Amino acid sequence: MGPHPAVAAIRLAVRRVLHDVVTEYNRRTEQAGRAEFAEAGAGARRSGLPERPDTPLVLVACSGGADSMALASALAFESRKLPVRAGGITVDHNLQPGSGLRAGEVVARLAEMRLDPVEAVAVRVGRDGGPEAAARDARYAALDAAAERHGAFAVLLGHTRDDQAETVLLGLARGSGIRSLSGMAAASGPAGRYRRPFLQLDRQTARKACLVQSIPVWDDPHNIDPAYTRSRLRHEGLPALEKALGKGVVEALARTAQLSRDDADALDTWAAEAARSVLDDAGRLECVKLSVLPPAVRRRVLRRAVIDAGSPAGSLFARHIEEVDRLITGWRGQGAINLPGRVEVRRQGGRLVIRQS
Amino acid sequence: MGPHPAVAAIRLAVRRVLHDVVTEYNRRTEQAGRAEFAEAGAGARRSGLPERPDTPLVLVACSGGADSMALASALAFESRKLPVRAGGITVDHNLQPGSGLRAGEVVARLAEMRLDPVEAVAVRVGRDGGPEAAARDARYAALDAAAERHGAFAVLLGHTRDDQAETVLLGLARGSGIRSLSGMAAASGPAGRYRRPFLQLDRQTARKACLVQSIPVWDDPHNIDPAYTRSRLRHEGLPALEKALGKGVVEALARTAQLSRDDADALDTWAAEAARSVLDDAGRLECVKLSVLPPAVRRRVLRRAVIDAGSPAGSLFARHIEEVDRLITGWRGQGAINLPGRVEVRRQGGRLVIRQS
Repeated sequence: MGPHPAVAAIRLAVRRVLHDVVTEYNRRTEQAGRAEFAEAGAGARRSGLPERPDTPLVLVACSGGADSMALASALAFESRKLPVRAGGITVDHNLQPGSGLRAGEVVARLAEMRLDPVEAVAVRVGRDGGPEAAARDARYAALDAAAERHGAFAVLLGHTRDDQAETVLLGLARGSGIRSLSGMAAASGPAGRYRRPFLQLDRQTARKACLVQSIPVWDDPHNIDPAYTRSRLRHEGLPALEKALGKGVVEALARTAQLSRDDADALDTWAAEAARSVLDDAGRLECVKLSVLPPAVRRRVLRRAVIDAGSPAGSLFARHIEEVDRLITGWRGQGAINLPGRVEVRRQGGRLVIRQS
Repeated sequence: MGPHPAVAAIRLAVRRVLHDVVTEYNRRTEQAGRAEFAEAGAGARRSGLPERPDTPLVLVACSGGADSMALASALAFESRKLPVRAGGITVDHNLQPGSGLRAGEVVARLAEMRLDPVEAVAVRVGRDGGPEAAARDARYAALDAAAERHGAFAVLLGHTRDDQAETVLLGLARGSGIRSLSGMAAASGPAGRYRRPFLQLDRQTARKACLVQSIPVWDDPHNIDPAYTRSRLRHEGLPALEKALGKGVVEALARTAQLSRDDADALDTWAAEAARSVLDDAGRLECVKLSVLPPAVRRRVLRRAVIDAGSPAGSLFARHIEEVDRLITGWRGQGAINLPGRVEVRRQGGRLVIRQS
């Protein structure tokens, strides 16, 4: 008799990612080997470099919740059959009394699964961008540091399709276009370090897998705290949307994320090429050339140019870019446009002059 | 003292569209005049053609609800100050007892506003695609016929920003990509006949404008019938989403529609160009050339090719196209892919062979 379908599902999801990890690790090691060989040939072989281990280390980031505990259990199981080493990290956000004890328990459970190394990392959460963003920033900084410290090739994150659907809705609420609808990538971070094996898997499957494997899980009280936007979305917004639109909403949102990501990537590629083609000999943007681009491409070219001039991407909204766009499409001699980051755009002699004061 | 802000807002929205209508009408009339002149010069002047009137006729499509009654009132007011004639059409869907009487009342109110011509058109709603789609199809067919009959240049529709937000969510539930997120266009239909002046205006403003102008309005019971998806969305889904994400959701959804539309247009343009570049001398799709396109562009090329071969667009889902795409990106000798409309795609000698049986 095989494992429970939920357990089979989480293991399959992790196995696929581990296969990718092994393939990429071997390719990169081979390239590094060739580079070393070439260096040696040039008589420049350096000594004292740490030996590259034979197998990649994969860490699971584990909060102790159902999603990441399921992920840890699948990693522990699958890593035994593949040339990978598996460890785990839990981040103690220090936001609730007893969080240190909690982190200690998670570490003990990861060690019971025979993950090695396992580590609890305590962080201090700041206030920038609101409580959720501040916690996330602190968490990723700690995970990045842990990955470097342990020489990890990949860090697995337990985000599910439900998390993805919530992320798409949060992006939708910003109303800033398809890039913000594209949710979380299956691989992100430095050199694609962060991997999300469960991005196509629903949360219910992860919970079920913990239940049938008798893995105790911990429900973060923040996840049901209505003070948090994501929690309100999860417990009120999404269920109401499912009631109105039918049960397929989560899947549809996750598919929207993937399609939007591909579309946004293609348009960014186009805009990067177009950006070169609209420059005059002095490297300034020519309005006539900009005017014949499709609006979607032109606005991306303008956005990129303004960011390159020093305007912070996070403060730059669609309406700012529309205003700049009107220097091209609705020119009636208007003055300079002032943008966040003290960046100024003016039209002069059929060119856009963009500068930071 | 000027009009109430809500009344000023609806009039401004209509005025802008009427200005566009007049400009376009003059341009097209001028072009037609030149064409006629050229024809006359070639000795081919035909007689018996109806004289082109001096001013365009603009019809308002009016259900008797607040949005379209506000629209009718603004059209009646603004048309007096511009070289346009203004009329109104109401469609009797024959779905409720007394709907004929209702239509008669709407016609009387439109006539009171001194719109001319005014007409009630009765339709028979079929069953294709569910009750909402069937009613919509019957309505647009009747409006198209009325526009032709009266020689109308434009037909104004009362869709508001709230309707747009609902349409985006309905598209999101399909999960079929950014085209379905792009909602309704400001101008659509044959020669851009349908115009939506209120697409940036919220429903509350339209209601308020009726109230302060003492215009009686009729609330379609379908709008609050939970058997209808849009009604559930309006009364439960969207309010819950606003509660979770904040009051700006409707505006963000409407902005998403505009940005998605521009993006989808640009990608369609790219795909149309790419489609030509990937053909071999015999007009077949070359897999090697397809493989270097960005996935978002390649999938659009494939979708278009499959539709051109006879697959009905409405039955063609993302998963179908993904399967075809794997003939390019995941080729391992798989057999023919069967698609809706008896269209078959197979890979043969590095080419895609697409045909309908």
